[in-house]
Amino acid sequence: MERQIYLENTAWQEGLKLMMDKLAGRCLPQNESIDVRLALHRITGAIVRAKKSSPHFAASAMDGYAVRAKDTHGISEREPRWLELGVQAIQVDTGDPLPEGMDAVVMLEDVLELGEKGILLQAPIVPWNHVRPVGEDIVEGEVLLPIHHRIRPQDQGALLAAGVIEVEVRCKPKVGILPTGDEIRPVEADLQVGDIVDSNSTVLASLVEEWGGSATIWPITPDKQEQLEAAILQMAASQDILVIIAGSSQGRDDYTSHLVGKHGTLYLHGVAIKPGKPVVLGEVQDKPAIGVPGYPVSAYLTAHLFLEPWVKHYQGLGKDTQTSLDAVISKKVFSSLGSEEFVRVKVGKVGERWVAAPLSRGAGVTMSLVRADGMLRVPRLQEGFHEGETVPIELLRPVSELEETLVCIGSHDLTLDVLSSHMKARGGYGGIASAHVGSLAGILSLRKEEAHFAGIHLLDPETGEYNHAYLKRFLPGRDIALMNLVYRTQVLIVPKGNPLNIKTLADFTKPGVRFINRQGGSGTRVLFDFLLQQQGLSKEQILGYEREEFTHLAVAIAVASGAADVGLGIQSAAEALGLDYVVIGEERYDLAIPREYLEEPRMKAMISVIQSKAFQEDVLALGGYDVRETGVFYA
Amino acid sequence: MERQIYLENTAWQEGLKLMMDKLAGRCLPQNESIDVRLALHRITGAIVRAKKSSPHFAASAMDGYAVRAKDTHGISEREPRWLELGVQAIQVDTGDPLPEGMDAVVMLEDVLELGEKGILLQAPIVPWNHVRPVGEDIVEGEVLLPIHHRIRPQDQGALLAAGVIEVEVRCKPKVGILPTGDEIRPVEADLQVGDIVDSNSTVLASLVEEWGGSATIWPITPDKQEQLEAAILQMAASQDILVIIAGSSQGRDDYTSHLVGKHGTLYLHGVAIKPGKPVVLGEVQDKPAIGVPGYPVSAYLTAHLFLEPWVKHYQGLGKDTQTSLDAVISKKVFSSLGSEEFVRVKVGKVGERWVAAPLSRGAGVTMSLVRADGMLRVPRLQEGFHEGETVPIELLRPVSELEETLVCIGSHDLTLDVLSSHMKARGGYGGIASAHVGSLAGILSLRKEEAHFAGIHLLDPETGEYNHAYLKRFLPGRDIALMNLVYRTQVLIVPKGNPLNIKTLADFTKPGVRFINRQGGSGTRVLFDFLLQQQGLSKEQILGYEREEFTHLAVAIAVASGAADVGLGIQSAAEALGLDYVVIGEERYDLAIPREYLEEPRMKAMISVIQSKAFQEDVLALGGYDVRETGVFYA
Repeated sequence: MERQIYLENTAWQEGLKLMMDKLAGRCLPQNESIDVRLALHRITGAIVRAKKSSPHFAASAMDGYAVRAKDTHGISEREPRWLELGVQAIQVDTGDPLPEGMDAVVMLEDVLELGEKGILLQAPIVPWNHVRPVGEDIVEGEVLLPIHHRIRPQDQGALLAAGVIEVEVRCKPKVGILPTGDEIRPVEADLQVGDIVDSNSTVLASLVEEWGGSATIWPITPDKQEQLEAAILQMAASQDILVIIAGSSQGRDDYTSHLVGKHGTLYLHGVAIKPGKPVVLGEVQDKPAIGVPGYPVSAYLTAHLFLEPWVKHYQGLGKDTQTSLDAVISKKVFSSLGSEEFVRVKVGKVGERWVAAPLSRGAGVTMSLVRADGMLRVPRLQEGFHEGETVPIELLRPVSELEETLVCIGSHDLTLDVLSSHMKARGGYGGIASAHVGSLAGILSLRKEEAHFAGIHLLDPETGEYNHAYLKRFLPGRDIALMNLVYRTQVLIVPKGNPLNIKTLADFTKPGVRFINRQGGSGTRVLFDFLLQQQGLSKEQILGYEREEFTHLAVAIAVASGAADVGLGIQSAAEALGLDYVVIGEERYDLAIPREYLEEPRMKAMISVIQSKAFQEDVLALGGYDVRETGVFYA
Repeated sequence: MERQIYLENTAWQEGLKLMMDKLAGRCLPQNESIDVRLALHRITGAIVRAKKSSPHFAASAMDGYAVRAKDTHGISEREPRWLELGVQAIQVDTGDPLPEGMDAVVMLEDVLELGEKGILLQAPIVPWNHVRPVGEDIVEGEVLLPIHHRIRPQDQGALLAAGVIEVEVRCKPKVGILPTGDEIRPVEADLQVGDIVDSNSTVLASLVEEWGGSATIWPITPDKQEQLEAAILQMAASQDILVIIAGSSQGRDDYTSHLVGKHGTLYLHGVAIKPGKPVVLGEVQDKPAIGVPGYPVSAYLTAHLFLEPWVKHYQGLGKDTQTSLDAVISKKVFSSLGSEEFVRVKVGKVGERWVAAPLSRGAGVTMSLVRADGMLRVPRLQEGFHEGETVPIELLRPVSELEETLVCIGSHDLTLDVLSSHMKARGGYGGIASAHVGSLAGILSLRKEEAHFAGIHLLDPETGEYNHAYLKRFLPGRDIALMNLVYRTQVLIVPKGNPLNIKTLADFTKPGVRFINRQGGSGTRVLFDFLLQQQGLSKEQILGYEREEFTHLAVAIAVASGAADVGLGIQSAAEALGLDYVVIGEERYDLAIPREYLEEPRMKAMISVIQSKAFQEDVLALGGYDVRETGVFYA
């Protein structure tokens, strides 16, 4: 080997990009299935779905007494009534299953008097009062974790609560580390003049471990070409990534570059960084290989620049950063005085502002810890925060992930979850933070610049057309692009077997049929009101018109748990819970996107996912969807 | 057991403080000794000192030829000269030991011609040119890591390079986790109506692992007082911290509070947080015990609020935060165009500004990775940064630690390391970031508000008094407190056995005596110039007056490695390297502290350490110090 003094002087960013481009299509991560209890900090290798609903039975949400709501009809302060213990009222603790035949819970504090044989009530109780329905926290089949997600303690909790005991994770990339050099000695050796102790191998192995890889340190190999060659080929046969540490003198990297070229491809020898210039980048038998200089600081630095992105690439991960930020709160937060409250929030960046959207606040809602991007503390002597106030958020996710997140506020649709997972699967980060507040509230979020886009399905009763009229009315002067996401089948959701034989809206008026409605401003509510009017029915004829839920799934849960006999919603929600349904029509579900966001890379990525065949096939598999105009922009 | 509905409603901060105060003096961490290669992320349980110097031999810093400097005297462009290969010039690679008899290295690039038998030079070479002296990176006995430091990959590297194979670390606190409740079932169970799967134990165990503890999950225990009692006592016998998870219903925490009170002390039952109110805090047989509510979100939150501080307290750690910040650079940074350079920096907060001080930049300086608080990137096409410029710093340490750090710029003294370690040992974070630039430059840093205090020892030749005159001259109008740190013995540092029999400054003028000087502006330089003048000697008589080093240790290293025959420095530096010395006097080393910083908690903490007996005893043990006025403020 001759001494080679002249090296290339490429910018390290170019070197890294070159390497990533060459390896992108070939070095694919592998999966393994492991026990969830051992999965802390591992990276999911597939979308993880719930195997069971949680709670898996209707449960009391309070300490008190389970009752039948109809036994309390007519009770008032003037006419209090005793309910017989063990027959009409059964004592329950929080979390206890609702006893057979009972459909509501009276809180201990609401019992006027407790006697030998009964409890005295002074107010009627509505059905499903203080009852946690099946699936309130987690619905069977629901997406719990996206692909390429680093499993945290709270994720393990949600998986176990949802009956998932084994989880598909990325195999840890195997990194072989080869210390070389005649003068390099093991840690235990008695050093002579000229000897250098091998500290680099330990440093690099520890870094690899921090990045989620699994490092194996090879025996120290002297500067003999045959021995180096044998060691490198041995590493290539069993490892995913090869690291060759040059001895301490300059020019040793020449062996590495020569051998990489001989058994693979040498991409680059020498980058413009100081210290660390003589780094070698290439591949040996399809395995990425890096030659790092032997000086400790150079070895550490080049490992950070090149090895870290590779080890993370194998797992689909980016770099971590800060742990708190200031965000504008998108919705008023109330809190009781006297307690410090911890509100879970979703966080995304819209324009230059961070926006935080509060999530569900019950203590039992495991999934809120999984979905949350951060925590907002409401101090003890404060009533809450106003909408639009700037508040400090403690992050539960890396900022790099949040920066890639698109904020969607508007109507709920199950395909948004599929879309978010597809986006994560592509880039590593990405994804959608969606708040389900209904179509109209979504349009208002666009006006307040708190969302990147809104999912809407608002029928204009005058024209019979969807969405356009509402954008003109509520966002005059704003340039909004309107793109179709899906057509979806609207159905009447009924229990399995349709016991009350409900076929049309007119059947809702039959005695004993209990309806569950959607909130005002939701597209489904607009549709329902439109249909009632069309068929000459009035809301006074519908029992339960005032009972409102906020999502399709919540409506389906109400039907599945027996809290209602029928609701209006999308077919996929009924199918997700194994319910029956009656098709009543089709509606257009669009995304409204302010034109200034169309050119953002994450938005472009989303549109390209929506227009992809893979996404549309997954949507069709849900049932109840049509993709004939999916990804099409309307003029 | 009766149902207890009324709980206390204490603020959680008060509850935590109560707990910490009660346990502070009693729950002391234990140490164990482990292999450095297995010590990643463990917490040091004692100061770690170097067992060997690194490099442990004088080594070539370049690829080239080792020569004797005196063989090159008189060489010039007009009179180039051949040095005979193998006799006058020996080929060396970077890192090779300097061959016997040689005292300098010529870079390959500086060789005019390479012939069969020799190399042609066209310039003379000075002694120790391109030679890394013994201990350039790490000096035997030097403090490598303070106590309560979380070991990172680069720390392992420095320890191994310094001959440290075993390290004293904190034992991981053992945390026993007891899931309780008649309705709680193991993960593998086939759930019946009313059953709840035990997901909390896994979540809490994973959190404990993330915080550095070691968790053991006890079998699920039903709501039977005798069984709960047995399990709690069993945990108390073997664990450091007890966690009892209540079942899912309210009021279960009453068992916990009752049993904690029976076998120990109940501090608190109920804190003002939502969710999580019915938390129980106390101790069982001197072990801290926490009862967490069974609802997943409550369990997670109360663990973060109470369990995390305890687990970290056992290891001497605080909480982590952000990973980058903007800082004012305290010293000009040069960089060569064409390479992206990574400069290691120390970071501290002075007033409202973060200040970054660049560290040594050689690629071989392992310790710079350990000492560094962050990295500054100098982009490829930029020449560097001006002093006072604001630059982004990527952090290598948690911000909470940096916020507690005092910035000291000024003269170097070994007792500053001892002081820093004592401070860390007290509070958890703390410590001193010191930049060694000499006394005068330290005073100028105070003027620029880039340091909290300066270590100075400047003799006023007119009055024979220390420091006061310089503060008046360079910081007119500023209110500066002056406190004595130590009196220290100034010595002539000579090789073991004092072969040239040097006794006084007059001996420096003997032929062949090579002196090594300190930089201008250092207190030792001022003293040396004062002594020369006093004894009627001139600098022209001193061979090596122009050779400058920046610290006492560097001077001692120059003598120890044979690069110089004598230097002026402090006794403790000579003793650290096992050299001989001749006492020439005593000097006062003070800390100059702008009065506005005196009231800061970290400054108060430092002053109380300086005034403590423990610190002063450790200082005396170094040798060469007197503490008769240590901690005394001068009027």
